Amino acid sequence: MAGSTFGTHFKITTWGESHGRGIGVVVDGCPAGLPLEEEDIQTFLDRRKPGQSKFSTQRKEEDKVEILSGIFEGKTTGTPISLMVHNKDQHSRDYGDIASYYRPGHADYTFDMKYGFRDYRGGGRSSGRETIGRVASGAIARKILEQLGISFLTYTRSIGPVTTSITPEKLLQSDYRETSQGILSNPLYMPEESSCHKAQEYLETCMAQKNSAGGIIECIIMGVPAGIGDPVFEKLDANLAKAIFSIGAVKGFEIGDGFASAVSTGSENNDPFKMDHGKITPASNHAGGILGGISNGAPIIFRAAIKPTPSIAATQNTVNKQGEEIQISIHGRHDPIIVPRAVVVVESMAALTILDLMMEHMGSRAASLEQFYRYHN
Amino acid sequence: MAGSTFGTHFKITTWGESHGRGIGVVVDGCPAGLPLEEEDIQTFLDRRKPGQSKFSTQRKEEDKVEILSGIFEGKTTGTPISLMVHNKDQHSRDYGDIASYYRPGHADYTFDMKYGFRDYRGGGRSSGRETIGRVASGAIARKILEQLGISFLTYTRSIGPVTTSITPEKLLQSDYRETSQGILSNPLYMPEESSCHKAQEYLETCMAQKNSAGGIIECIIMGVPAGIGDPVFEKLDANLAKAIFSIGAVKGFEIGDGFASAVSTGSENNDPFKMDHGKITPASNHAGGILGGISNGAPIIFRAAIKPTPSIAATQNTVNKQGEEIQISIHGRHDPIIVPRAVVVVESMAALTILDLMMEHMGSRAASLEQFYRYHN
Amino acid sequence: MAGSTFGTHFKITTWGESHGRGIGVVVDGCPAGLPLEEEDIQTFLDRRKPGQSKFSTQRKEEDKVEILSGIFEGKTTGTPISLMVHNKDQHSRDYGDIASYYRPGHADYTFDMKYGFRDYRGGGRSSGRETIGRVASGAIARKILEQLGISFLTYTRSIGPVTTSITPEKLLQSDYRETSQGILSNPLYMPEESSCHKAQEYLETCMAQKNSAGGIIECIIMGVPAGIGDPVFEKLDANLAKAIFSIGAVKGFEIGDGFASAVSTGSENNDPFKMDHGKITPASNHAGGILGGISNGAPIIFRAAIKPTPSIAATQNTVNKQGEEIQISIHGRHDPIIVPRAVVVVESMAALTILDLMMEHMGSRAASLEQFYRYHN
Amino acid sequence: MAGSTFGTHFKITTWGESHGRGIGVVVDGCPAGLPLEEEDIQTFLDRRKPGQSKFSTQRKEEDKVEILSGIFEGKTTGTPISLMVHNKDQHSRDYGDIASYYRPGHADYTFDMKYGFRDYRGGGRSSGRETIGRVASGAIARKILEQLGISFLTYTRSIGPVTTSITPEKLLQSDYRETSQGILSNPLYMPEESSCHKAQEYLETCMAQKNSAGGIIECIIMGVPAGIGDPVFEKLDANLAKAIFSIGAVKGFEIGDGFASAVSTGSENNDPFKMDHGKITPASNHAGGILGGISNGAPIIFRAAIKPTPSIAATQNTVNKQGEEIQISIHGRHDPIIVPRAVVVVESMAALTILDLMMEHMGSRAASLEQFYRYHN
Repeated sequence: MAGSTFGTHFKITTWGESHGRGIGVVVDGCPAGLPLEEEDIQTFLDRRKPGQSKFSTQRKEEDKVEILSGIFEGKTTGTPISLMVHNKDQHSRDYGDIASYYRPGHADYTFDMKYGFRDYRGGGRSSGRETIGRVASGAIARKILEQLGISFLTYTRSIGPVTTSITPEKLLQSDYRETSQGILSNPLYMPEESSCHKAQEYLETCMAQKNSAGGIIECIIMGVPAGIGDPVFEKLDANLAKAIFSIGAVKGFEIGDGFASAVSTGSENNDPFKMDHGKITPASNHAGGILGGISNGAPIIFRAAIKPTPSIAATQNTVNKQGEEIQISIHGRHDPIIVPRAVVVVESMAALTILDLMMEHMGSRAASLEQFYRYHN
Repeated sequence: MAGSTFGTHFKITTWGESHGRGIGVVVDGCPAGLPLEEEDIQTFLDRRKPGQSKFSTQRKEEDKVEILSGIFEGKTTGTPISLMVHNKDQHSRDYGDIASYYRPGHADYTFDMKYGFRDYRGGGRSSGRETIGRVASGAIARKILEQLGISFLTYTRSIGPVTTSITPEKLLQSDYRETSQGILSNPLYMPEESSCHKAQEYLETCMAQKNSAGGIIECIIMGVPAGIGDPVFEKLDANLAKAIFSIGAVKGFEIGDGFASAVSTGSENNDPFKMDHGKITPASNHAGGILGGISNGAPIIFRAAIKPTPSIAATQNTVNKQGEEIQISIHGRHDPIIVPRAVVVVESMAALTILDLMMEHMGSRAASLEQFYRYHN
Repeated sequence: MAGSTFGTHFKITTWGESHGRGIGVVVDGCPAGLPLEEEDIQTFLDRRKPGQSKFSTQRKEEDKVEILSGIFEGKTTGTPISLMVHNKDQHSRDYGDIASYYRPGHADYTFDMKYGFRDYRGGGRSSGRETIGRVASGAIARKILEQLGISFLTYTRSIGPVTTSITPEKLLQSDYRETSQGILSNPLYMPEESSCHKAQEYLETCMAQKNSAGGIIECIIMGVPAGIGDPVFEKLDANLAKAIFSIGAVKGFEIGDGFASAVSTGSENNDPFKMDHGKITPASNHAGGILGGISNGAPIIFRAAIKPTPSIAATQNTVNKQGEEIQISIHGRHDPIIVPRAVVVVESMAALTILDLMMEHMGSRAASLEQFYRYHN
Repeated sequence: MAGSTFGTHFKITTWGESHGRGIGVVVDGCPAGLPLEEEDIQTFLDRRKPGQSKFSTQRKEEDKVEILSGIFEGKTTGTPISLMVHNKDQHSRDYGDIASYYRPGHADYTFDMKYGFRDYRGGGRSSGRETIGRVASGAIARKILEQLGISFLTYTRSIGPVTTSITPEKLLQSDYRETSQGILSNPLYMPEESSCHKAQEYLETCMAQKNSAGGIIECIIMGVPAGIGDPVFEKLDANLAKAIFSIGAVKGFEIGDGFASAVSTGSENNDPFKMDHGKITPASNHAGGILGGISNGAPIIFRAAIKPTPSIAATQNTVNKQGEEIQISIHGRHDPIIVPRAVVVVESMAALTILDLMMEHMGSRAASLEQFYRYHN
């Protein structure tokens, strides 16, 4: 199944396994004339790099990106941009019994059922390293969106039972640059220091118990103009849902008030419109910036639930390929939590989605089409 | 934007507005040789018909489906199946001021921002009537899936704060036919009578307060073989998320333990594998039947959060097209809750998604391809 | 296989068989705000109507189009436009032995091989009536293109051995409106009266011999701006080739000098650039308006070869479903030539292709994207 | 525009420019379990390698392919196969004035019109080197097709005015392996020695005159089962037409009798069916193996017209970016004819098309779907 392509206009195709030659992505449909260099992409990749705190794997992964095509004299040419990160220690490892049994919570069994066999080294294609291609291409999308006045705040909302008390509303009132840097300078990417400390304590307990934790990532997208998305199958929220759910370990997605809106009432949940400096604006944002599948100009706010890392050192029951029930204990350099490293992946998938739908939107009105061609011809 | 097509292999394209000539869907890619008649489809459409309880709109909508193409001698021919439901009272209504202002919680404003104007009659294209095409085509998908041994249980999990105490586990232990009929014979499609009564009381209070309610729909899909879905962007859960989120009013989607898994730990959340009658089977089902984006053979279980109906009789603030702040109160025959009527829509979108990915799956292995062509040539 | 959808942005999905309830098309992605009424479409459908000369079938097909959705207050809303033509005499006919044998040159055998059986009435889905949906949607594309300054001249270049001596160059020098009307007022849509007379004589001979004829259709597209199309798989000419080859009976497609360029040399075949009123322009047009898959601003010129109508009254050898070799003679009201009726189909497919790629083109440059969003936000 | 992806099931995405870091392709959707090594691909790449005769460029291009992902223990895993060829002398060259003017017959001007600027080094993305990705992925498609019993004969039919007198019928009667090797051992890939000599003489004259030549490539595909392709927009011939026309320099495409069928009559052009060893078979093959867009089991035969190489040393008129009319003469190591090197490109695109549609075909009948799932579950 050809499932490694995402997007229609700004289309990315990722490739690569955990322990193959490398990981890469081809970005096709990037508009021409965008200044782009490796550093623009590396900055984003570094946000998902492991080894930055004791709560992420201590594996050493440099993950230096190389641009192989699509750039000429420092600018995108409109043709495919091929990006690659070489895998460093692809040959060194002993995989022990991992080939012979099915790890609970992993895709080992389902790969065997789908394909008849699997590349078991480090998770193969379902390794977290697959997200390198998403982040590298997301960095380009983010750069384009920035030029259109669109910015992102993405952070760890909760780790296990520990939730930050800072709300999106509060974050939106703060200075963007400061808030953004505050989040990035925090090892868990969780705004608010006190929650962050509690989360670290919780994670230490998990690790002591050879266990792992999950959490929730929240993303705020500011500056998306009203009118983006489609009223039926290509709703903006439906596309975001798919994009975010395509990230491994995501088990839930909600927009605006999300599941809380199911216990709300119409009068509470509806966002009345008001005039704000001559512009029609929702007075509240229970909807999370989307109505009927189309952006309404308010910040888009969504959350993703991430399950606990399935690789744990504690003993687990499972079966092997011969169909024998066995007990295993997974050792190695695994993240006790992937939430902080997944923050930039969530942001990247959101950016890719928004940009793609914005490009699609350009043809929505006959008048715009005419205006475009009158100007360009 | 061409956003009214869903699916790649079993591809549907819907059309029609609330108060136009009718609502329809073209189903393209339906395998040839399936016995199909209008009654197969009508049964499903009747499940979304309004006016069956006092909690749904008292509008009279007959919604008789007509098959316009694609059937010959009682069987599908493999060419497009065009289905249509005529709108009955499309000319009768006075729309009052609805054209001039933006209803909170509706897509009025976002349509104007996207397209420059809108068909304001009854919500136009973003009316709930748009789902007729989904259900009609979903009925065909359901019929095919049935022949492959795949069945569905879809029901109202909660209405406002009232949640049924019956778990998916319990439903899965019961007799399928009986459970299924029990759910269908209930006006709220909520299993368990006592919860259902409480939900009805809650809805009556809402109505008395000119207010509306939301709720949660749960869907269990049994019999999906292991191996369906793709490990990267076309994950089975990602496709389900998009499909379900493309239904108006959905604000959240979760699979298996969903958001609860974010506060769980690895040792709790992982589903150990065991042998069951010689077959590898997950011993629990926190994952909801999907691992790494691919089905693992366990029942697929997901939930969708539905927001309260935005059309309420209580007074609301909003603005009109002239940018004046006004107060409105929406009268008319609106559902105080859409959850029960949305149950069959959720099931239909799930069926369309599963079938499409199953058709895609056929080419996953070189050996299957060879076997197919050796047999068919 | 879901093969009844064409286009990405201006996406059409056709449905219907020769003798079913009707023939239709859903146009999705039509920009909002275009004035559109049934008459705009009917004009084009009338160009493919049979019975206008003795060289087309004498069947009576009124083919009145109905707009079922997507228009509000006389303008497109940006949502799907559903168009339908009812089949008139779908019940009246006796199909005789047609169900039991395979007509040479028809798709009877290949349908059976693909689907296991077929709707044999009047050719079913592979009837020429399938093109109604193409022409109806092509009429909308043509209307949009007209507003962008793009016009078409499509005509019969040859019938059997009779070729018009008028060249595209000459047609381009003439007054467009006059030429266009001259072609339309001619029963064979062949410019130049003397060739037309010879062609009629040739056709009369064919008919007398219970035989049929083929021919070549030429299409000139004026006003397409330079820059449309893509340099690799989505070349403008590649898309035109597919669009035209998707019309039944087309056996060849060439652009510019086409097959003649294979015997030319570089110095003859290259079109030098020159300055024309301050604009870079090709001095000749061997390329037919496309270089490297992208329009160069010159008129786009292509030709399609149409095979002789396969339904002939002369005796033919074939086999029946039982595998017996038999002789047949096809009676009924068949066109001795379909070329004139196919002219508007070729033009429609070309219009759909050009419009789709023009909409795609809007996102080609970062600067245009910025300009669009700065203006629209 | 995201136009560098081809195929739906067996989906390829190519990237890279003539003088960038390299050229590559990502093959997504390749069925799992196919034995594959670099040598399988290299064999095909070597067929397009320049420098094998004096009639192709004397540039030295080693074009060694590397498999970067998707293979484990010598077999495809079902996940993306990333292939790359490094460009050798990407830094060495002086491009002189090529950046400042528009070469006739090249895509220089159209790139500038589309993207605002271009990577002018060696043609950038529209270089013939772009076809490396097509051939590398085509090699994999060919290997799968071989296992399904499908084989190809692709060769130079004509060069300039010199046409081989050997017909497809004759080639089909000969021993496949011998014929195939005979073609490959010939520097022009033209069957029949005497024509080949004449063609060489013709090319020498062209070169002496600083000119270039075009020609026609013919492709015969044997063993495609009846039933492949779709009756409407996704006709097998329409897909072949697009695939072949997406190759640079192709100006015409025809199937079976092609343009000759336009001057034929129904009784000549129809292929009667007969019984052949108990199997229904067309008695002749004017149709080229396709009826109504669907394969009929006979060999598929098509031809592509290739224009003369536009880079010629003779003086040509053109304009520069400043809009001044100038004279140029293109020097460098250019092929006086690209036809022989394009033979394997045509075959590759045909293989990719056939395989993709064969995979699509698997879901055509309800009975096959059931059989597949009953067997696999």
